[in-house]
Amino acid sequence: MYRLAIIGFGVVGQGLAEILLKHKARLKKENGFEFSVVAVSDFVKGAAYDPKGLDLAKVLALAKENRISEYRGAKTGWNAIDTIVKSNADVVVEATFTDIKTAEPAYSHFKAALKSGKHLVTTNKGPTALFFREVAALAKSRKLQFRYEGTVASGTPALNLAGLCLAGNEIREIRGIVNGTTNFILTNMEKGKSYGEALKEAQDLGFAEAIPDADVEGFDAMAKVIILAKAVMGADIEVADVARTGITKITLDDINSAKAEGKRWKLIGRVAREGGAVRASVRPEKLDVADPLAGVGGATNALTFSTDLIRNVTIIGPGAGKIETGYAILVDLLAINRTAPAVKKAAPKKAAKRMKKIRKPAKKAKR
Amino acid sequence: MYRLAIIGFGVVGQGLAEILLKHKARLKKENGFEFSVVAVSDFVKGAAYDPKGLDLAKVLALAKENRISEYRGAKTGWNAIDTIVKSNADVVVEATFTDIKTAEPAYSHFKAALKSGKHLVTTNKGPTALFFREVAALAKSRKLQFRYEGTVASGTPALNLAGLCLAGNEIREIRGIVNGTTNFILTNMEKGKSYGEALKEAQDLGFAEAIPDADVEGFDAMAKVIILAKAVMGADIEVADVARTGITKITLDDINSAKAEGKRWKLIGRVAREGGAVRASVRPEKLDVADPLAGVGGATNALTFSTDLIRNVTIIGPGAGKIETGYAILVDLLAINRTAPAVKKAAPKKAAKRMKKIRKPAKKAKR
Repeated sequence: MYRLAIIGFGVVGQGLAEILLKHKARLKKENGFEFSVVAVSDFVKGAAYDPKGLDLAKVLALAKENRISEYRGAKTGWNAIDTIVKSNADVVVEATFTDIKTAEPAYSHFKAALKSGKHLVTTNKGPTALFFREVAALAKSRKLQFRYEGTVASGTPALNLAGLCLAGNEIREIRGIVNGTTNFILTNMEKGKSYGEALKEAQDLGFAEAIPDADVEGFDAMAKVIILAKAVMGADIEVADVARTGITKITLDDINSAKAEGKRWKLIGRVAREGGAVRASVRPEKLDVADPLAGVGGATNALTFSTDLIRNVTIIGPGAGKIETGYAILVDLLAINRTAPAVKKAAPKKAAKRMKKIRKPAKKAKR
Repeated sequence: MYRLAIIGFGVVGQGLAEILLKHKARLKKENGFEFSVVAVSDFVKGAAYDPKGLDLAKVLALAKENRISEYRGAKTGWNAIDTIVKSNADVVVEATFTDIKTAEPAYSHFKAALKSGKHLVTTNKGPTALFFREVAALAKSRKLQFRYEGTVASGTPALNLAGLCLAGNEIREIRGIVNGTTNFILTNMEKGKSYGEALKEAQDLGFAEAIPDADVEGFDAMAKVIILAKAVMGADIEVADVARTGITKITLDDINSAKAEGKRWKLIGRVAREGGAVRASVRPEKLDVADPLAGVGGATNALTFSTDLIRNVTIIGPGAGKIETGYAILVDLLAINRTAPAVKKAAPKKAAKRMKKIRKPAKKAKR
């Protein structure tokens, strides 16, 4: 039985809650996974904590009106750090907003979770991209799990595919379509729309933000490339190392002349071993239509892993969505359930003592 | 340290041996996997057994001239069953030829391996398709692993993807291109060749047999569909339940008129939940070019898993090849290494006693 604390109750957190609520019996039967959600904390929607478990249907209903803090019978009003540190959770699910520049406040949540002895599962690209090594080392030193499948292509298995299904290979290159918004825009331009028209449609449909830079300038894809480089290739790649070009300068003429050559423009994130180094880039590339990535239209994501033993393996699937991204958290929880069986935790009354410890960490962490 | 016995030393067994020989240090360092190959047994190429481990370079060289039985210093001349039962192996790798009608002799090898307390890893479709439940139950009753990633799409992860990366989903449908030979033929027909010409080219290149029925009549794809149905969906699907049509009646006219509609013919293996039942088929289907399977050309394999939580996820990769299929065995060995750490085994001198036990199995197997 795992006790979960969900930090950030936006689309992803709610998607997870909906899955957990609907499929509790199936997850127990098929996957041997038992859980209770003991805490939910959201900056806007409110927070509630019950060490014996919250009623997810009630939390979801209250969340719609930003009234989670009115949950009766629960401890309410805790902020994220209080919830992470003081709750009796075994696993912290971090699903707050991504800040690719500072990684905060999510990075503080990551550290608080691991330092208070809790496994960490996240979809948050900011701290995963910027501080991957630090977080992974902290988790390892505490013998805890840090899982982040949803940071690259929502629940489409990119990281688990590389880590489990392609184990034993040397992965030489990863290239893919890791931003659904720009792929949606480029796909629509192939239907004859200008960049401006295609962007506007993406904005109207909620795929793109009013200020669309994170997508169209390639920052979102860059974060994912950094995560792939660090997590899959163990490479020292930081923001400054990624050659990044967005799609804003692609014109309808470019699209059409590519089409005439039997090619297609795609925004490709790439990380590759070249000689002794690892190179990373995000840029529009003109792909041959025979390339499995060329056929990937709309908001779908796809990644091709080039390896020494099984050659090229391509995975294609959703890159966004409430349930799809909530599922990314679930698949990580199931991995923890397979590999780090739940153990009895200290009673909640000991939380104060734990919190003290966290503020003043032991000098030598056990390794 | 796992001790391996390789039964059947054709393309797959040799592919595995080449990988193990070349990447021994990497597998230890990156995957914590240590092994020695204690036995190789092949009906034609000969057999050798050394409880302390064979020199794989020597075995590979001798295999070229069918002289494995001349390996100096090893026990030679054992048949497959002797090797399985009497060797001190922890894992039996079964890579003999596939017989989709009787499943023999591989099925006997499967049973002997598990009954003598050895994990079983295979690429052999025959017994995996026909006797999946029996073998899985036997493995479970002995607390041993039965792994078979290479039975569907060589080392392209089909089964591990479903079992690990898509865990927690209800898989509602699996459809795919699981026979590279027929896909090669259909792809060549799109270039204007007749069925006969395209078949002959596949035969000349060694993709298709002189009697090509296993491929072109859909028997090979059928075996894979049965494995997917049983292993991924837990379904009661047998040979008689699979609606099977090959590609022999597809004409160049069919190909061309599909092309004019923006479609492509593919030999699709499919297994789907429909109402309370599971339906399975192998037949040519006319796919829209926007379907990720439509763009898969040549001898490549591809599978789309339709699920309730992460919707459609498609995997594309090699469907055959010496190293590619050898890799399928390796990825299964690494999974055993992750989930069933090697334990000390009885000394080889106790083999005779074990063999006796196998011939007269205990009435009540432990469960």
